[in-house]
Amino acid sequence: MIGLGLWNAKDISVKALEIVRSCDFVYLETYTSRLGCDISEMEELYGKKIILANRELVEGDSDEILKKEKDVAFLIMGDVFAATTHVDLRKRAVLHGIKVVVLHNASVLTAVGETGLELYKFGKTTSIPFENENVLSPVDVLNMNRKNGLHTLFLLDLRPDEDRFMSVKEACEYLLKHTDDYMAVGCAGLGSDAPEIKYAKLSEMEGFSLIPQCLIIPGNLHFMEEESLAGFKK
Amino acid sequence: MIGLGLWNAKDISVKALEIVRSCDFVYLETYTSRLGCDISEMEELYGKKIILANRELVEGDSDEILKKEKDVAFLIMGDVFAATTHVDLRKRAVLHGIKVVVLHNASVLTAVGETGLELYKFGKTTSIPFENENVLSPVDVLNMNRKNGLHTLFLLDLRPDEDRFMSVKEACEYLLKHTDDYMAVGCAGLGSDAPEIKYAKLSEMEGFSLIPQCLIIPGNLHFMEEESLAGFKK
Repeated sequence: MIGLGLWNAKDISVKALEIVRSCDFVYLETYTSRLGCDISEMEELYGKKIILANRELVEGDSDEILKKEKDVAFLIMGDVFAATTHVDLRKRAVLHGIKVVVLHNASVLTAVGETGLELYKFGKTTSIPFENENVLSPVDVLNMNRKNGLHTLFLLDLRPDEDRFMSVKEACEYLLKHTDDYMAVGCAGLGSDAPEIKYAKLSEMEGFSLIPQCLIIPGNLHFMEEESLAGFKK
Repeated sequence: MIGLGLWNAKDISVKALEIVRSCDFVYLETYTSRLGCDISEMEELYGKKIILANRELVEGDSDEILKKEKDVAFLIMGDVFAATTHVDLRKRAVLHGIKVVVLHNASVLTAVGETGLELYKFGKTTSIPFENENVLSPVDVLNMNRKNGLHTLFLLDLRPDEDRFMSVKEACEYLLKHTDDYMAVGCAGLGSDAPEIKYAKLSEMEGFSLIPQCLIIPGNLHFMEEESLAGFKK
C-alpha cells in the first residue's frame, strides 16, 4: 500500500518506485482523491500498466485484488490511511494471509502547514459533502474548534468517477448559510510547483485555477501565523 | 525546502532527489526529528556532502544559509512545516528575495493512520517535554479532546544533539501522574519496514526497540477502530 503524495508522478518516493517496478500488478485507487498528473506519466515512470480501482472494485469485488498470488502494488493518492476504505482493505488483506507493507507519503492534512498555520493547533478535521442541504456536522465541528481556539480544516467532497470536485467557493457558500463571514484560507494545488493559497473572507474567496483541496477557518492566531496569512491576502 | 519522510534515505521523493542532486549546497536540519538511517546513506544516494544544521545555525546564524547565491536544498525530516522554526526560515528566505520551493513528504501526524485510528477524529496535537514537573498543558489538551470524543496525539520531546529521545514509556509515566490508566497506543518506527504499534494501558506500555515517535490516547472508538487496535494488543 503505497502513498503517492500530492501532485506529480515523481512525488512517489525512491523506495516506493523500486517496489512498484518490482510488482506484478499495480492498482491505483481513483475515488478518494486526485493527483495533478496524468496516469500515462505514472505508467511511463513505473514501466507498468496501471489498473484503475474504483470504490466498487475495492469495497465490493476486492477478491480480484486480494486473490492474486503475486506481488500487488496498491497506490493511494496522498498518504495511505487518510480514508477508512484503505484501513478496511488492509484488514481484509491481512485476513487473506497477505503480507502488507505500507509506504507513507505527503498528505493535504500536513501540507496545509504551508499556510503558516501551526499544525498543532488544528482541531478535528471535517469534510463538506455535495448534498449538504440538511447537513450541519461541519458547522458543529467548526463551532467546537472555534470555542477551543483551534483551526478547522474542511476537506472538499469529490467524485472523480464523475469528474466532479467541490470548489473552494462552493464550500464557502455552504458555510455562509450557517456561519458568519469569517476570514478563511483556501488551498488548491498544494504539492504543485505553484500552490494557490488565499486568505480572504468566505464571501470573497475565489480565483483558484488548480485542483481545489481544502478550506481552513483559523481559530486564535499567533502573531507568526497572522504574519504568514497576511502574505496570502488578496 | 524538502521533506524527507520518516525513515529511510530512499523515502525522499523521486522529484526531490533530482532537485537535491542539482543543488550546490545541501543542509539537513538535525533538531526537530530523527530519521532511521545514517547520514552516509543519504550522502551516497544524493552524491552530495550534507551540512548539518542545528537550531543555532537555522535560527541564529542563518545568513550562512540565506546568503549563499547558489541553489540550496534544506532537508527536513517528516513533512516540511510541522515545526514553527521552518515556517520562520521560509519567511526569512522570502525576505531575502530567495525563491522557495516546497516538497512535501510523509509526517508522523498522518502516518499514525496505520494504527487504524481515523485521522479525522484527532483533536489538537500536543507534545510532552522532558522537563515536565510543572507542565500541565498536555493533560489539558487530553481532557479537552476526550470531552469531545477525540483522539489525542502526543509527540515526544527529543534533543538529537544530545542523542536524547523521550521514550514512549517516559511519556506514559508523565501522563500517569495526572490521569487515569487509560488504554493508549504507542508508536515507534513508523515508516520503517517493521513499525512497532502497541495498544496497552499506560502502565503496561513497553517493549519498543525502534526510535519512539508518539503516544496516542484514543477518544470514542468506532467499531472498526476497535477492531484495528485489537490487532495491536500485547
